[in-house]
Amino acid sequence: MKTVHINRKINFENTLFFYLCNMHISAKELGLFLNGIVEGDASVEVTGPSKIEEGLEGTISFLAHPKYEQYAYTTKSSILLVSKDFKPEKPLNPTLIRVDNVYDSVAQLLDKFGGEIPQFAGVAEDIFIHEEASIGKNVSIGSFSVIEKGAIIGAGSKIYPQVYIGGNVILGENVKLYPGVKIFYNCKIGNNCTLHANVVIGSDGFGFAPLSDGSYNKIPQLGNVILEDNVEIGANTVVDRATMGSTIIHKGAKLDNLIQIAHNVEIGESTVIAAQAGIAGSSKIGKNALIGGQAGIVGHVELADGTRIQAQSGVNKSIKKASTALYGSPALDYNNYLRSYAVFRRLPELQQKINALEKRLAELTDNTEK
Amino acid sequence: MKTVHINRKINFENTLFFYLCNMHISAKELGLFLNGIVEGDASVEVTGPSKIEEGLEGTISFLAHPKYEQYAYTTKSSILLVSKDFKPEKPLNPTLIRVDNVYDSVAQLLDKFGGEIPQFAGVAEDIFIHEEASIGKNVSIGSFSVIEKGAIIGAGSKIYPQVYIGGNVILGENVKLYPGVKIFYNCKIGNNCTLHANVVIGSDGFGFAPLSDGSYNKIPQLGNVILEDNVEIGANTVVDRATMGSTIIHKGAKLDNLIQIAHNVEIGESTVIAAQAGIAGSSKIGKNALIGGQAGIVGHVELADGTRIQAQSGVNKSIKKASTALYGSPALDYNNYLRSYAVFRRLPELQQKINALEKRLAELTDNTEK
Amino acid sequence: MKTVHINRKINFENTLFFYLCNMHISAKELGLFLNGIVEGDASVEVTGPSKIEEGLEGTISFLAHPKYEQYAYTTKSSILLVSKDFKPEKPLNPTLIRVDNVYDSVAQLLDKFGGEIPQFAGVAEDIFIHEEASIGKNVSIGSFSVIEKGAIIGAGSKIYPQVYIGGNVILGENVKLYPGVKIFYNCKIGNNCTLHANVVIGSDGFGFAPLSDGSYNKIPQLGNVILEDNVEIGANTVVDRATMGSTIIHKGAKLDNLIQIAHNVEIGESTVIAAQAGIAGSSKIGKNALIGGQAGIVGHVELADGTRIQAQSGVNKSIKKASTALYGSPALDYNNYLRSYAVFRRLPELQQKINALEKRLAELTDNTEK
Repeated sequence: MKTVHINRKINFENTLFFYLCNMHISAKELGLFLNGIVEGDASVEVTGPSKIEEGLEGTISFLAHPKYEQYAYTTKSSILLVSKDFKPEKPLNPTLIRVDNVYDSVAQLLDKFGGEIPQFAGVAEDIFIHEEASIGKNVSIGSFSVIEKGAIIGAGSKIYPQVYIGGNVILGENVKLYPGVKIFYNCKIGNNCTLHANVVIGSDGFGFAPLSDGSYNKIPQLGNVILEDNVEIGANTVVDRATMGSTIIHKGAKLDNLIQIAHNVEIGESTVIAAQAGIAGSSKIGKNALIGGQAGIVGHVELADGTRIQAQSGVNKSIKKASTALYGSPALDYNNYLRSYAVFRRLPELQQKINALEKRLAELTDNTEK
Repeated sequence: MKTVHINRKINFENTLFFYLCNMHISAKELGLFLNGIVEGDASVEVTGPSKIEEGLEGTISFLAHPKYEQYAYTTKSSILLVSKDFKPEKPLNPTLIRVDNVYDSVAQLLDKFGGEIPQFAGVAEDIFIHEEASIGKNVSIGSFSVIEKGAIIGAGSKIYPQVYIGGNVILGENVKLYPGVKIFYNCKIGNNCTLHANVVIGSDGFGFAPLSDGSYNKIPQLGNVILEDNVEIGANTVVDRATMGSTIIHKGAKLDNLIQIAHNVEIGESTVIAAQAGIAGSSKIGKNALIGGQAGIVGHVELADGTRIQAQSGVNKSIKKASTALYGSPALDYNNYLRSYAVFRRLPELQQKINALEKRLAELTDNTEK
Repeated sequence: MKTVHINRKINFENTLFFYLCNMHISAKELGLFLNGIVEGDASVEVTGPSKIEEGLEGTISFLAHPKYEQYAYTTKSSILLVSKDFKPEKPLNPTLIRVDNVYDSVAQLLDKFGGEIPQFAGVAEDIFIHEEASIGKNVSIGSFSVIEKGAIIGAGSKIYPQVYIGGNVILGENVKLYPGVKIFYNCKIGNNCTLHANVVIGSDGFGFAPLSDGSYNKIPQLGNVILEDNVEIGANTVVDRATMGSTIIHKGAKLDNLIQIAHNVEIGESTVIAAQAGIAGSSKIGKNALIGGQAGIVGHVELADGTRIQAQSGVNKSIKKASTALYGSPALDYNNYLRSYAVFRRLPELQQKINALEKRLAELTDNTEK
């Protein structure tokens, strides 16, 4: 499969590229395929998708977020995929297909018609695999990847180029490791996990013991990281190994890009964390939590199931009540923060009121005393 | 060009290194070269640059930021490059060269005299290039890089080692991809773009559809990323691909390190974004905006041209008026935030005033009622 | 040492993995080894460690942070390592070993008993080393790493796979560069430094000169980065090179993951910076400072020795007094911020008080005037 071939002919006629869907289908057929209700001209045909705000004739767009509703009335798309419950406020041009869940239908469409994604398969020759590593069936491995001694790679996994898999790492089945992923010794990745480019799993936790002269001794970081099944982790995110024991990300959790997960953290099942959030050492996040972008959580706290943290908030204590919403740094109850912030905006005015009150009270005191 | 050569002789005499400029020039000659006005001894010569606060005899320093003016009076540098408008408050020692734009002049100097940057050229042998990739004239490719099927590499581009270029990626001319850059399938990079180490372009957008049991289904991310000409992107920054359509960074935009650009975001021409900022999905930033470090912008908003966002601010709504300045989380008008924050600092005092007012009013009420 | 070997036998019996300590020792022996005082059954034996909150019989746990004291009374661990000064509030089951510094003792234990860390040694064949690079004694180099012209690698250094070392880079002795580290030309790394996966050292500083048409010209970044001895830098952190001169991280400084260090920054000796913090261009941080996670520091300021910055704070001015603690964005004195924030939480109540005062004062004025 190694094909080092320098094709020196320059081919720039083709620099305009289009994502090509293999789609050529009528509204009627789409309605059947998506189990939806067609409103309008069922015979209209589309050959690809476009965004609702940039809609083109002969394409299908979708409306899932209310902020985009305005475009429904102006789009030139021929078909519009909408929710069963959508009530247009004005007349609109496209044929509507009403479905139970717009996102699910989009996923169905893309599964069926999404073409042109280059497929990655096979085992490259220019790789390093230790002879004591175990490689499952139908594993793909890209160029310049390294698999160290004792690693076990589950069947169907795709290891893109330039990946590093340390000693004794265990990868489940159907795992995807995109280019540049680094996984360190003894870590364990569950089935169907997807790790995006340059993710680091199992780097040392940040632990140093202060010495009397102000310098630091490194505390060895000897635990590991465990990702359970169906975890997805975004590009350039880092999950540190535990000092002892394991940093654990439970099944179905979804982490965005550039996130910091410190040593011994535990993330609950199906919890979602947005980009650039950070969780300090030994904190435990419950199930189905939602953590906003750039939020921070201090070490050694526990957050109940369903905790929702607004972007940029800083959580500095444990939350025991499920589904609590938080905002601010340090974080308060979400609504309390908004109420306080509403007054914060008017603080200069409030100060003037207080000054006026003082003045009037002084006058009044003078008058009364006279 | 492949030279795997283990040079085992240890050569540590050379461990002290200096950046050597190929400079040996008088103030008079520099004045001519920079089209500037020389004040003081025009015969003094310099052989390299130094920072104004650490100025050394025989070197040239520059003064571009007012915070550094203090050092102009104490520096030992022999020549000081200053703005035409600079009015010294005290006497100073160096010969001055007055120019229209100090930064431009520094750039001119470095263009002329900056030497010693190791040049990167040629095509290494230990690479993987698919036979259906197209490589332009004078392209350099470093060791252990991968160029997948259908990729097109424009003339004069430099692909450093350990870069990954996915299927059908189109690179313009004179693009620089530093080591560890990963670009995914179908993305398009304009002419003269520079991507620093470990940048990720075209990773999946963060899109999941919630299911009734609390778990998530991945929404396929089938769009791409388009960088127009002259875009520069800092190390470890991530730009996610669009769900459908394109995430677009318009020409001349400059992004610093560790930034998150989510799916379907659009960044306007010549907009500058500082390190660790994050922009959530589908938001559009106008032209010539300035976004401070660690700032966050929620999804689905539009910011007008010239919007300026203070570092660490959190913008949660669209801004329609051009050149609006914002601060705070959630972000307010810049000056309003500062005014409110000025009162915030005195809140304990304000509370005491209110308590005192209440007490005095109660006394007064008592007195009046008596 | 190159062993490209596809071991196709699938070996999944071994998928459950345990971190095995080579430990089998009694409390009495441990007390002697750690120079500690044994309280309780000195004959009890342990075979490995466990976390105090998940303690298992036959294991040793440690108690170093007061938040974990609650678990001391319920843990099933057989031995508990505690501080000399620990005063239990209730009876507890484990045998105690009292030591001067719990972290130091843990480090001693792990040094002695921590096994199973795959060792990395030797020089791989599938690497690129320029013939004019100098490699010291006992250097290890992993697959697909690149060492450019003029680089000098100190004795005993370990360069893991997929590392890039630019031209004229100087590495001290016993440096560890984990997979994916990129170091650019002319940078200098001191002895015993550790750089975790995907760290970038010496990328261009973020410097652009605005032109009259709103676009930007790149300012060449021609300085370097100097890391002194014993510096440790976390995964995916970026340290930009200086415009001129050097970005300097002094000896013993410890940086966590995903941190941004801009051009010309200087970090003092033994300063500790938590994850996702960012320091803008030309700022200088003193010795023994503590910078919290996600904190930001603007450019061109100086912070005194021992400055302590709370997580998420934004420091926008120089701090002259040593050991000042800061909080907030913009940052205030730590205690002042907390006092103001305490009132911020009650702002809606305060506003009601002011409204009530206004009303009562109006009534009073009416009454008085009648």
